[in-house]
Amino acid sequence: MVSKARTVTLLTDFGTRDHYVASMKGVLLAIDPELHIVDITHEVPKFDIRRAALLLANSARFFPHGTIHVAVVDPGVGTSRRSIIIKTKNYYFVGPDNGVLSVAAAGDGVKHVYQIREDGSYVLQRRSSTFAGRDVFAPVAAHIAKGVPLEMLGEVIKSFKRIRISEPKRFGNRIDGEVLLIDAFGNIVTNIGDELIEDLEPGQRILVNVGGKLLRVPFLKTYGDVERGKPLALVGSTGLLEIGLNQGSISCLLRNVKEGSRVSIQYSRE
Amino acid sequence: MVSKARTVTLLTDFGTRDHYVASMKGVLLAIDPELHIVDITHEVPKFDIRRAALLLANSARFFPHGTIHVAVVDPGVGTSRRSIIIKTKNYYFVGPDNGVLSVAAAGDGVKHVYQIREDGSYVLQRRSSTFAGRDVFAPVAAHIAKGVPLEMLGEVIKSFKRIRISEPKRFGNRIDGEVLLIDAFGNIVTNIGDELIEDLEPGQRILVNVGGKLLRVPFLKTYGDVERGKPLALVGSTGLLEIGLNQGSISCLLRNVKEGSRVSIQYSRE
Amino acid sequence: MVSKARTVTLLTDFGTRDHYVASMKGVLLAIDPELHIVDITHEVPKFDIRRAALLLANSARFFPHGTIHVAVVDPGVGTSRRSIIIKTKNYYFVGPDNGVLSVAAAGDGVKHVYQIREDGSYVLQRRSSTFAGRDVFAPVAAHIAKGVPLEMLGEVIKSFKRIRISEPKRFGNRIDGEVLLIDAFGNIVTNIGDELIEDLEPGQRILVNVGGKLLRVPFLKTYGDVERGKPLALVGSTGLLEIGLNQGSISCLLRNVKEGSRVSIQYSRE
Repeated sequence: MVSKARTVTLLTDFGTRDHYVASMKGVLLAIDPELHIVDITHEVPKFDIRRAALLLANSARFFPHGTIHVAVVDPGVGTSRRSIIIKTKNYYFVGPDNGVLSVAAAGDGVKHVYQIREDGSYVLQRRSSTFAGRDVFAPVAAHIAKGVPLEMLGEVIKSFKRIRISEPKRFGNRIDGEVLLIDAFGNIVTNIGDELIEDLEPGQRILVNVGGKLLRVPFLKTYGDVERGKPLALVGSTGLLEIGLNQGSISCLLRNVKEGSRVSIQYSRE
Repeated sequence: MVSKARTVTLLTDFGTRDHYVASMKGVLLAIDPELHIVDITHEVPKFDIRRAALLLANSARFFPHGTIHVAVVDPGVGTSRRSIIIKTKNYYFVGPDNGVLSVAAAGDGVKHVYQIREDGSYVLQRRSSTFAGRDVFAPVAAHIAKGVPLEMLGEVIKSFKRIRISEPKRFGNRIDGEVLLIDAFGNIVTNIGDELIEDLEPGQRILVNVGGKLLRVPFLKTYGDVERGKPLALVGSTGLLEIGLNQGSISCLLRNVKEGSRVSIQYSRE
Repeated sequence: MVSKARTVTLLTDFGTRDHYVASMKGVLLAIDPELHIVDITHEVPKFDIRRAALLLANSARFFPHGTIHVAVVDPGVGTSRRSIIIKTKNYYFVGPDNGVLSVAAAGDGVKHVYQIREDGSYVLQRRSSTFAGRDVFAPVAAHIAKGVPLEMLGEVIKSFKRIRISEPKRFGNRIDGEVLLIDAFGNIVTNIGDELIEDLEPGQRILVNVGGKLLRVPFLKTYGDVERGKPLALVGSTGLLEIGLNQGSISCLLRNVKEGSRVSIQYSRE
C-alpha cells in the first residue's frame, strides 16, 4: 500500500555547507508543500558514484512503499548523459543515468525506465547547465509525488547504466571478495554475504588477508563479544561479513585498505 | 496536551556519511508515514555516552509534549545490555540501558520504565546483532507514536542505568565543579548553576582555574560585553556558568581542557 | 498563493554537533507541531554574516511563498542590536538586525520591517542573554506560522542594516569583480552576472586574474566540457560567472583566493 504522505529522499555529494541541498528542498516544497523530505546523506565523497549507489541500496528498501529516491552524484551534469526515472516494484528512483541508481533499483526489481524530458513543463523553466538536482530532478520528484503519470515526465527507454559490484568467489577453504564500504566507525564491510559463510561457527577463527596484511580474528556475533580495542569478524547489519574492532577503528590500523580493495578470508571447514 | 502530529527525535554517534541514520528514518516512516523526525545530532563522538546524555538533556525538554526521543550511542549493542523505554512526565525515551537516556529522563520526572521485548512483533522481524537503532529502537518508537500501549512493547522494570554528573561544591569563596561540555564555538560550559552564583555581580572579576591555567575574567551578560577576542564568564543558555571569548574559541587557547576536566572559580563576596 | 503547510527554514553558524539547532526545532514544534522545518545550513563559518547572507539569498527564493526564513549568525546576541522581522513580497525573514537577512530580503522586495518586542508574550518567558535563536527567533517564527499578525510581534521600523555586495565594473575588455563564494566543490563563484558577459561566446578563451595568479581558461557550458582536472569558466547555477575544474577543486590550486578576493577577467570582444 502506498501511503498518502509522500516521502522524497535525497542523496548527493553536495555537502551541507552550501545552499545547494536547501535549494532542492525549496523546489520540492514549492511544488508539493506536504512532502516529507529525508536526507540519506550529502557527504558522499565528491563524484564517488559507486559509494552513492551502495548507500542508496543499503537504505532505500527501508522506506515506505511509494517513496521517491533522488540521488545526485553527477560529474556529467549538463553533458549528453541522460536524466532518468526508474520505476521499481516499490519505489521511484530519480537521477542521472550514470549508475548511481542502478544497485538500489535492481535490488527492488526494475519495472520501467524513463528518460526525463528536460525541456518539458515539469522541470524548472529557467534552468542552469550545472545543477540538474535543483532544475530537473527535484521538480520531477515533486511531480511524481503529486501523481503526475510518469509518461508525462519522460519517455520509456529500454536500459540504463549499471554499476557492476563484483561477486565473491569460493575456492575450497578460501573466499575472495572485495571491500564494499568502510563506515564512519572504521568498520570494513565486505561483499561476502552471510549465505556464503553459513558453515562458519561463532567463535571460530578466520584468517583475513586485506590491504597487504594478514589478521587472525574470531568470528562472533557483535563487537562487544571481544575486549575493547580487539579485532573481530561478524555479519553486519546489511547481512555482509565485516571486519571491525570493539570501540575502535580497524581501518585506522589498516591504512592501505580502501573501498574496492581485495579481501580474502580462510577458515577450516569441518 | 499531546499534539496529534507526533515528533520523533534521533540522537546517535553514527555520523551522517553512511546509510545508518537514513535506514532508521526509513523504518520509522514505513510504520508511520506522518511522523515528524528531527535530528538532535549524529555527531556525538563515537561511544561517548556521557556527552550524548547531556545533549539530550539540554534539548529534549524544548520539544512538544508527547515527543519520542530515541538516543543510540550503544557500544554494547547485541550483548546482554537491555533495550528500554522510559516514560516520563511529558516524553518517551527509547534506547539502550547504558545511561544515555538517564539525565534527560530524570530531568523530566520518570514515571515508568519498560524493558523492550526484542523478540516481539513490534521490532523488525529480520534483525541484525549490530544495529538495534534500525531493528529495535526505530520500530518501537514508531509504534509508540501510533499509540501502541507500552505494555505491548515491553515489560515494566524497576530501575535503569544512570550516569552520575558530579555536583559543584562551594568552599567559602571558591566553587569546585567540572567542565560539562565544550561546544562548537569553543565555549567551556561548567556544571556550576546560576543559583550557586546568585551573589556574583555583573562586572565583577572572577578567578578561574581550569586545565592547569589561571585566568582572571569579568563576569558579564553576553559575549559582546567584551572586545573581540577577550575572555569572559557568563551564565549561558542552559543556566550554567560558562567561560568563553567574544568571537573566538577559548578551548583552542586552553588546549588541556576537556569535557570532565575540573574547574574551580573564586570571587570575593561582599 | 500561500500553502497551508507552513515551512520554516533555519540557517545558522551553530554547527550540528551541539544541542543548539535541536533546541530551536523543539521550540518551533512545541508552538506549531505541523511545521515543516528545513535546514539551509548550520555550517556557516562562525560569525561570517556575509556568507550567511549570500547563502540565504541563493536559496530562500526557491521555497514556497509564505515560508519563514530564520537566519541566526549573531555575534552581537544580547547586546543592543535589534531583533527584526522583514516582510517581503513572498516571504518572512526573522533574525538579528546585522545584515544577515538583508541580501535575501532586498532581492524579494521589502514590504515592512518590524523590531521584535523581546519582552512580549510571543517569545520564551525564561530567556537567556546568549541564545536568541531559541528564545526569540524560533518562537516568533512559529507564531508567524500560526498566523499571529506581525503587529503583535513587533513595532514597525523604517530601516534595517544592509550588507553591501560590491558591483562588478566593466572597463573596455576587462571586468573587475570579486569572489562571492567558494563552494564545497572548490568552485570560485564571482559577482559577475551573466548579463554582463552576454557577448562572451562558448568556447572563447578568457584571462582570469585572481589571487595573484593569471589563468587562461575556456568559457564553456558545464564542467564536463573539459577533461577531468582541467580548468574552465562558466555561468553557474545562480547566474554568475564561476571558475572551476572538471571533477577537481580549483580553490585548492589557488590557495590565496578567498571569499571577498578581487577577480578580474579579460576577453576579446568582436
